[in-house]
Amino acid sequence: MMVRESILHLDGYKAGKSIEEVRMKYGLEKVVKLASNENPYGPSPKAIEAFKSFDSLHIYPDPDPLDLREKIGEYAGVEADRITLGAGVDGILENMFKLFVEGGNEVIIPVPSFPYYHILTKLSGGVEVRVSRREDFTVDATEVLNSIGKNTRLIIICSPNNPTGNSENMNELKDIIEDGGVMIFIDEAYAEFSSKNLLDLAQYSNVILARTFSKAFGLANLRIGYAVIPEELRKYFLKVSTPFPLSTPAKQAAIAALDDREYLKMVVDRTVAERETMLRELKKMGVRAFPSESNFIFIETEFDSAYMVEELLKRGIIIRDCSGFTGCNSNHVRVSVGKKEENDMFLEAMGEIY
Amino acid sequence: MMVRESILHLDGYKAGKSIEEVRMKYGLEKVVKLASNENPYGPSPKAIEAFKSFDSLHIYPDPDPLDLREKIGEYAGVEADRITLGAGVDGILENMFKLFVEGGNEVIIPVPSFPYYHILTKLSGGVEVRVSRREDFTVDATEVLNSIGKNTRLIIICSPNNPTGNSENMNELKDIIEDGGVMIFIDEAYAEFSSKNLLDLAQYSNVILARTFSKAFGLANLRIGYAVIPEELRKYFLKVSTPFPLSTPAKQAAIAALDDREYLKMVVDRTVAERETMLRELKKMGVRAFPSESNFIFIETEFDSAYMVEELLKRGIIIRDCSGFTGCNSNHVRVSVGKKEENDMFLEAMGEIY
Repeated sequence: MMVRESILHLDGYKAGKSIEEVRMKYGLEKVVKLASNENPYGPSPKAIEAFKSFDSLHIYPDPDPLDLREKIGEYAGVEADRITLGAGVDGILENMFKLFVEGGNEVIIPVPSFPYYHILTKLSGGVEVRVSRREDFTVDATEVLNSIGKNTRLIIICSPNNPTGNSENMNELKDIIEDGGVMIFIDEAYAEFSSKNLLDLAQYSNVILARTFSKAFGLANLRIGYAVIPEELRKYFLKVSTPFPLSTPAKQAAIAALDDREYLKMVVDRTVAERETMLRELKKMGVRAFPSESNFIFIETEFDSAYMVEELLKRGIIIRDCSGFTGCNSNHVRVSVGKKEENDMFLEAMGEIY
Repeated sequence: MMVRESILHLDGYKAGKSIEEVRMKYGLEKVVKLASNENPYGPSPKAIEAFKSFDSLHIYPDPDPLDLREKIGEYAGVEADRITLGAGVDGILENMFKLFVEGGNEVIIPVPSFPYYHILTKLSGGVEVRVSRREDFTVDATEVLNSIGKNTRLIIICSPNNPTGNSENMNELKDIIEDGGVMIFIDEAYAEFSSKNLLDLAQYSNVILARTFSKAFGLANLRIGYAVIPEELRKYFLKVSTPFPLSTPAKQAAIAALDDREYLKMVVDRTVAERETMLRELKKMGVRAFPSESNFIFIETEFDSAYMVEELLKRGIIIRDCSGFTGCNSNHVRVSVGKKEENDMFLEAMGEIY
């Protein structure tokens, strides 16, 4: 029984190596994972408590819970009817591709960026149009606008961008939104770590702006994402969504996490402070590390990325080899900002290697 | 910004009314929901405990956990490498459609059956080919085989069938599998309530057999489904799956639920006993209720289904109006088998209406 032709040539999403795998393979006791941009402080204790307070696991969850949408609406400064929920930004992306992209449609992606955009483009039968970024990895509006053709259905902008860490300029994106005449998807999964955000752009009728509870809110395991969308699109998102994207305990955890702003601030402040320390130390070593508005750092090493990753694995540190990301080269790696002791371990290892 | 043409005409999945909605609308204190085929006893207490024993919510879950696949493999009598996981049978179905169905492909569905099959066929750009069932709602192999054309990619068989409650005959399905030459999807979400199951058919290289933790195992809220598949398909399922279909707490709950067979037996025994009592009582009233191998009962009422549903709502009982299901008529409703006191409330109300 053959699967569809386009599936045969598809690369699936590659998750990071687990701590357990590395511990066993290298016979190490202490292994730290700085590969998946997780929040090392975990979620607010109140979110964990809320998660555990629901026992009726035999009842189907609410397909589109208003209480969470209202709470997110408050946080993002929009009405609840402009919020759509999904199983992580991944779930939002899947719904959006179902809505806008079919065979032969073009999707513009400034590269490098998050690999799942490329996978979904191929899965949907769409054609990926790659646009280069500037030296500092920002998106060049002129380049994007010049790539728009009559089959273009979607432009995907990630800000702060994974894996390069830079944020986009609001005015530059306005040009694309106002002159492009197509749907723009803005992935702000890492927005909380940035000094600026692009929420104001969600006022445009051709913008979908996605966010997540997986990063600053520390709930990656539960897959909770949302998007600010034009109100008239909400019914279509519901039509194409998996019927029950969020469990009730996950929903309760998200609400409690949103209520604990003090905890969120602690996570962001510590992460930003650690990030800047790491950048400073890396520069001292002569490592080419790029400025970041996120909870990870993009590095162009002198060595082959596979060698770099392997040398760090031997020392118990898992980072991400980015050489397989479309638009990256064989020297690119990405390291997440962990807790101080994890980052110190990474920096010490880098000192040895360099 | 326009969504794809095929989305405009799509009916989304309609979840059942919630108890809270009905309580408010009708000003009732006691409302019972017999509309979503939930397990009224809940999951094993050990599953709830396992669910709550995981605190690292900030860490991404394992994309394809071997421990759960091994445990399911034991339960289903197959190797772990023949198990694929998904967010409910819904998630398995979504992956399967991505693998096999694209624009213009035909999907054969004996009707009536589970509405989500129709939604996914339309979403994928496929063409739905409806096949009538026999008087007792079983699938007629000859009818199905006659419907296969050169564009047929998938045949979907639900057994026990939702909403009609009947199970399929193994030999009848063998004819379809052996002579059809296309992929057969068997949805056994309700298998645990049936006197027979179709697991042996999963030995064929053109069969995908899906099951769930949402029904007999009482974990509907957590969306955990699996399928027994030909081993060579596993890599393709992983390629098209959402990267992290199951949270770690959900996975742990599923493992604990599988370990508590005694509890499972209690749930199934009570449900089956209650179902038979309900059927007996309904027949006494002259209600046309069909035999069931599941945890729900299909009824052809003398009244319009909307009237029937409304009369029951006034009395605090939520059942499912099936008149909107493809292949049902305007007298069809479905009632879930609840706990004794819930079923008694339903039977009493039916006595008043009839």
